[in-house]
Amino acid sequence: MAGGIGSRFWPMSRPERPKQFIDVLGVGRTLLQLTVDRFGKDFAPENTWVVTSAAYADMVAEQLPDVPRENILCEPCMRNTAPCIAYVAWKIFAKHPNASLVVTPADHFVVDQEEFRRVVSEGLNFVCGTSNVLTLGMSPTRPDTGYGYIQSAHKASGNVLAVGAFKEKPVLEVAQKYLAEGGYFWNAGIFLWDVRTAVDAIRKFEPEVAELMDAMATSFYTSAEKDTVANLFPKCKNISIDYAVMERLAGHAETLGGRESGVYVLPANFGWSDLGTWGSLHTQLSKDDGGNAVSGSGEVVFVESHDCVVRAVGGKKMVLQGLEGYIVAEDNNTLLVCKKQDEQRIKQFSELLKK
Amino acid sequence: MAGGIGSRFWPMSRPERPKQFIDVLGVGRTLLQLTVDRFGKDFAPENTWVVTSAAYADMVAEQLPDVPRENILCEPCMRNTAPCIAYVAWKIFAKHPNASLVVTPADHFVVDQEEFRRVVSEGLNFVCGTSNVLTLGMSPTRPDTGYGYIQSAHKASGNVLAVGAFKEKPVLEVAQKYLAEGGYFWNAGIFLWDVRTAVDAIRKFEPEVAELMDAMATSFYTSAEKDTVANLFPKCKNISIDYAVMERLAGHAETLGGRESGVYVLPANFGWSDLGTWGSLHTQLSKDDGGNAVSGSGEVVFVESHDCVVRAVGGKKMVLQGLEGYIVAEDNNTLLVCKKQDEQRIKQFSELLKK
Repeated sequence: MAGGIGSRFWPMSRPERPKQFIDVLGVGRTLLQLTVDRFGKDFAPENTWVVTSAAYADMVAEQLPDVPRENILCEPCMRNTAPCIAYVAWKIFAKHPNASLVVTPADHFVVDQEEFRRVVSEGLNFVCGTSNVLTLGMSPTRPDTGYGYIQSAHKASGNVLAVGAFKEKPVLEVAQKYLAEGGYFWNAGIFLWDVRTAVDAIRKFEPEVAELMDAMATSFYTSAEKDTVANLFPKCKNISIDYAVMERLAGHAETLGGRESGVYVLPANFGWSDLGTWGSLHTQLSKDDGGNAVSGSGEVVFVESHDCVVRAVGGKKMVLQGLEGYIVAEDNNTLLVCKKQDEQRIKQFSELLKK
Repeated sequence: MAGGIGSRFWPMSRPERPKQFIDVLGVGRTLLQLTVDRFGKDFAPENTWVVTSAAYADMVAEQLPDVPRENILCEPCMRNTAPCIAYVAWKIFAKHPNASLVVTPADHFVVDQEEFRRVVSEGLNFVCGTSNVLTLGMSPTRPDTGYGYIQSAHKASGNVLAVGAFKEKPVLEVAQKYLAEGGYFWNAGIFLWDVRTAVDAIRKFEPEVAELMDAMATSFYTSAEKDTVANLFPKCKNISIDYAVMERLAGHAETLGGRESGVYVLPANFGWSDLGTWGSLHTQLSKDDGGNAVSGSGEVVFVESHDCVVRAVGGKKMVLQGLEGYIVAEDNNTLLVCKKQDEQRIKQFSELLKK
């Protein structure tokens, strides 16, 4: 899923070029490219699909030249993750009804690639040929209040646990309680299921979306697809896959397509970050002796500064003196300087400038 | 005098476009233009001369279209203010031996234009037809350690006082003593004298410079001037007019060109600033409720920030949050963020970046 517009990383990430299309870590690959690379050893390019906004399709094609252009699906407008997943599931089901899918965001980072492959492999083995839905649960390393948590229930098979409930982003005390109790995992938004299961789940829980998908599907793989999608996709309700499917499957027995179904969690520990905050970016970047980190191609000199995270592009030169714990981000002829502790207000800051 | 390269205002002022050629105050006129404007009601354009580096001659001509091109003198290299003043004095003396001159830097600012005109008029009346040298002394408003001071002696005539001594930039305690005692003035580098006096003074105190000027003068106002100047000017010693003439005249009787001579000071209070520091620029710019000031064409929003001075060009947008007393200057693809209290180290900061 590569359609997001990433407002929290303004001015680095902005509607013209959101976060997934940027080499934020300075490793020579954008986050989208790193995501595809991560699966590259186990999934052929022709089995890689990207759903994105129509506005970004060319950028996706440019960054992923090995992915067949017909595997890049364009949403004419944003309708959240359920219609997004439904679209690609209906497309794949039409040609590969027995396929299993890994659904993933395009702007996360994983440190331990080998462990990631092992977990994905174990997860696919669990779902393949069943109507089960599996989500990967990140072992929490701190009481982070920025993530939803997955509360696990009984053991299912191997390392897989049943999901007891999906919990909203908690306040700090609750997050601390989750960590103290154990059995809670961060929801990374990564799902594994057979494509048939995805289709059955949408059909069961969001029949209007399914109806629109059926109508769209009559023109799939023809020259009429683009117009039909442009016409019908916007009629979909705006809903996340979490609300549409995951939460409705959690904590009780259910059937899908005539078979037993449930939602499960596979705990994982592969050094995952959603890079959702400047703080998390700061954590991933390499740092100087003062704890300062730089993303981008600029030349940045720190003088009597500590614990700063800086984004500098286009060979921008910077001298930063006397700053303790700031974000300094320059991009698109816009400079942001703010305290790291106030980064959750960045979206508000961006709205202070005239459009 | 418009040849300086202004390293203290990096990255705004830099060798390619130093401070005097910049509209730092955002008033629609560069500091050079403001300087010429200041004299405009009393001095005709054909009596306005600018000495600058050869590299800046076109920029001067562009910014001062009414000044005759032949009045823009090019130094092939920097030799400080004595050779600079000697060059223009010899040029003017060749055609207008009875002229009186006001010699001034091109990058200062004056608030009270009318008072300025009155002081200049009084000063010219004092020196005209004599061999006296007059400097304007700025009434000190604080114990500033960034200026040389003029210690006055006895009254001469009208508001003019004799100069007792020129004092180097003092440490704070000494500056405080000057203010407490009274009779001390900031040296603004503005001199008034008859051109004949300037020539006589150089001839007396720097005979080698005078000899080079005499040799250059044989080709003045001919097509050979440029080459002759390029050949001979660099042979001049590098010395300021202060050391060469002013200090040698201070505190005792002297004769120049057979007449009594001395150096005098006319105290003045016309809201002068040398704009020599970001701090002084901050003082001159209009400020928001938080005491923040912006120079340039950028769009700058301050959030929970106070007492900052910002330079933003080219429509740069900025959001600055949580900054107390910083300089934020972006120009020439370079960003400087430093504490105002550390601005005297800006030249060092600029040297930290690769050339």
